[in-house]
Amino acid sequence: MSGPDAPGAPVGGAADEFETIARLLRPLTGGAPEALNLADDAAVIPSRPGFDLVVSKDALVCGVHFLPDDPLDLVARKLLRVNLSDLAAKAAEPYGYFLAVAWPENTGWPERERFAAGLAKDQDLFGLRLFGGDTVATPGPLTLSVTIIGWVPQGRMVRRSGAQPGDHLLVSGEIGDGVLGLRAAQGRLAAMSPAEIEALADRYRLPRPRLGLRAALLGHARAAADVSDGLLADAGRVAEASGLGLDLALEQVPLSAAAAAWAELQSDRAAALAALAAGGDDYEIACAVAPEEASAFIEAARAVGVPVARVGVFRQGRGVAASFEGRPLAVDRLGYRHGAGDNDR
Amino acid sequence: MSGPDAPGAPVGGAADEFETIARLLRPLTGGAPEALNLADDAAVIPSRPGFDLVVSKDALVCGVHFLPDDPLDLVARKLLRVNLSDLAAKAAEPYGYFLAVAWPENTGWPERERFAAGLAKDQDLFGLRLFGGDTVATPGPLTLSVTIIGWVPQGRMVRRSGAQPGDHLLVSGEIGDGVLGLRAAQGRLAAMSPAEIEALADRYRLPRPRLGLRAALLGHARAAADVSDGLLADAGRVAEASGLGLDLALEQVPLSAAAAAWAELQSDRAAALAALAAGGDDYEIACAVAPEEASAFIEAARAVGVPVARVGVFRQGRGVAASFEGRPLAVDRLGYRHGAGDNDR
Repeated sequence: MSGPDAPGAPVGGAADEFETIARLLRPLTGGAPEALNLADDAAVIPSRPGFDLVVSKDALVCGVHFLPDDPLDLVARKLLRVNLSDLAAKAAEPYGYFLAVAWPENTGWPERERFAAGLAKDQDLFGLRLFGGDTVATPGPLTLSVTIIGWVPQGRMVRRSGAQPGDHLLVSGEIGDGVLGLRAAQGRLAAMSPAEIEALADRYRLPRPRLGLRAALLGHARAAADVSDGLLADAGRVAEASGLGLDLALEQVPLSAAAAAWAELQSDRAAALAALAAGGDDYEIACAVAPEEASAFIEAARAVGVPVARVGVFRQGRGVAASFEGRPLAVDRLGYRHGAGDNDR
Repeated sequence: MSGPDAPGAPVGGAADEFETIARLLRPLTGGAPEALNLADDAAVIPSRPGFDLVVSKDALVCGVHFLPDDPLDLVARKLLRVNLSDLAAKAAEPYGYFLAVAWPENTGWPERERFAAGLAKDQDLFGLRLFGGDTVATPGPLTLSVTIIGWVPQGRMVRRSGAQPGDHLLVSGEIGDGVLGLRAAQGRLAAMSPAEIEALADRYRLPRPRLGLRAALLGHARAAADVSDGLLADAGRVAEASGLGLDLALEQVPLSAAAAAWAELQSDRAAALAALAAGGDDYEIACAVAPEEASAFIEAARAVGVPVARVGVFRQGRGVAASFEGRPLAVDRLGYRHGAGDNDR
């Protein structure tokens, strides 16, 4: 693990980066030999014959990807979970991670301890260990980056490409809670009940990576992505990567009770469903499954308690064509460019 | 590669993150199959029987690790080189890297293109390819993180620990140009000639990772670290990780012509040498070599054009004892806490 190689960096009353490594991060290795006790500049990953290593790297910036008043233990857990969600979509078995933290100047021990406690909590829940990384100071906002690694049987990683015409688009769990949860956390869902608002905000702050779908994906999926940028965007990218188009039926998009209640409150149901399908941060799995494999996939998912809905069909052509009860809908820019002007999505 | 999963992020006139991936980053994969054309959420690293994977992750923050007016192509090259230097110290063969960039809002195409051009330049020089990563917006300063991976023969990674009492401390190249180069780049080396100032500033901006030492390290070193935080700090950490102390003779620390000229200008030569040995950003290799292996190491290094100096001896005990021509020197806090108060080191 690297220390704070920071000439001229102001340190002031801030917690010390070396002590952060020694006191807060070293315990997170769980004694993994790969981590070399965070006393080295590198980690060493032994060869695992018959397996490929899957690597994903995601960055989160305070004020962009999480809210400045989000508790840091939840931020840490979300950081791990959005990366775990990438592994889940690839049908990879989580193995370990590397962490880079740029702390705002004068970040004190209570915040750092809370962040480390969040990492520890989710490491336990997901069987993950810290292998290395870097900790530095920044004059800017808290900036986090995780490189997560996992294993898949050789040649078996489920890719974003590989869908075939006629494949079903299946989606796990519930869509739209991520975007509603963001609004809830920001206090912009006034018409909902306090219990619904809290449930949605929790869902935004703490995604549930669908790691249980590993066997279903390995056994029955041709292509997959996790729903981080919105179902329309992410399923659209599976289609695009596969050189195909996609027909998507909005009325089949699965909703939680809270999202269903929100949709009931909207005047235009089709537009409401489109907004939920365009929202991000659901961290469900969208995958392409051959028609003859669909029931086997759904059964394998149900065996681990994950509901699955069929929401579309891949076809020759390009682009996503969304419909509501048979009527086509314009979904021009929905979900394809987060934040590009629509601050209230 | 991940896109800008950034709800509510201002985009304004800034360059588009998706186009950044498509136009600037995708060519940097060089068609590597591992990168899946940056069209997936993950990269896939095939098993390489008989080899371990070495992984290192380093973050750089504008205003902390590089200067706001440093040209972005040089920043990109420094980013790769500080990570390559970690691989060099581990005797690992560079393989590929993952990049996370948090761009300040409204970073335009010229800056992004210049950054990508720097990456392309050094990828060519070092035989490296981009495998994946993330690109996001930030309200803060440009923040960069690279996770670099390389290969070593199974079980052969050179660690920071492993030095034995009596081992020589050998150091490659020249020490002190990094810290003098920072001062030069900041215009704080007025007494030097313009040519010397330029040479030193270049050295700070563009480290030279000592990848040529791979065979020498694999064949003859017991432990090693790259000199990023200063020779005293980094060699001290090799001693500490090995459970040993270290005697270091400052008059034997190898200097460049420019650093030697600077040292001549100082009233206290011992203090001047201590300051150079406490400075950072040299990106040389400090290693522990058994006495009977020292000449073989030096010969192997010379065969690839790298000078090596013997500057110390590991011993039983703890801590670094520095001397100048036989007289002991206090080096209490030199180099062990960068930026912790000394803004003019």
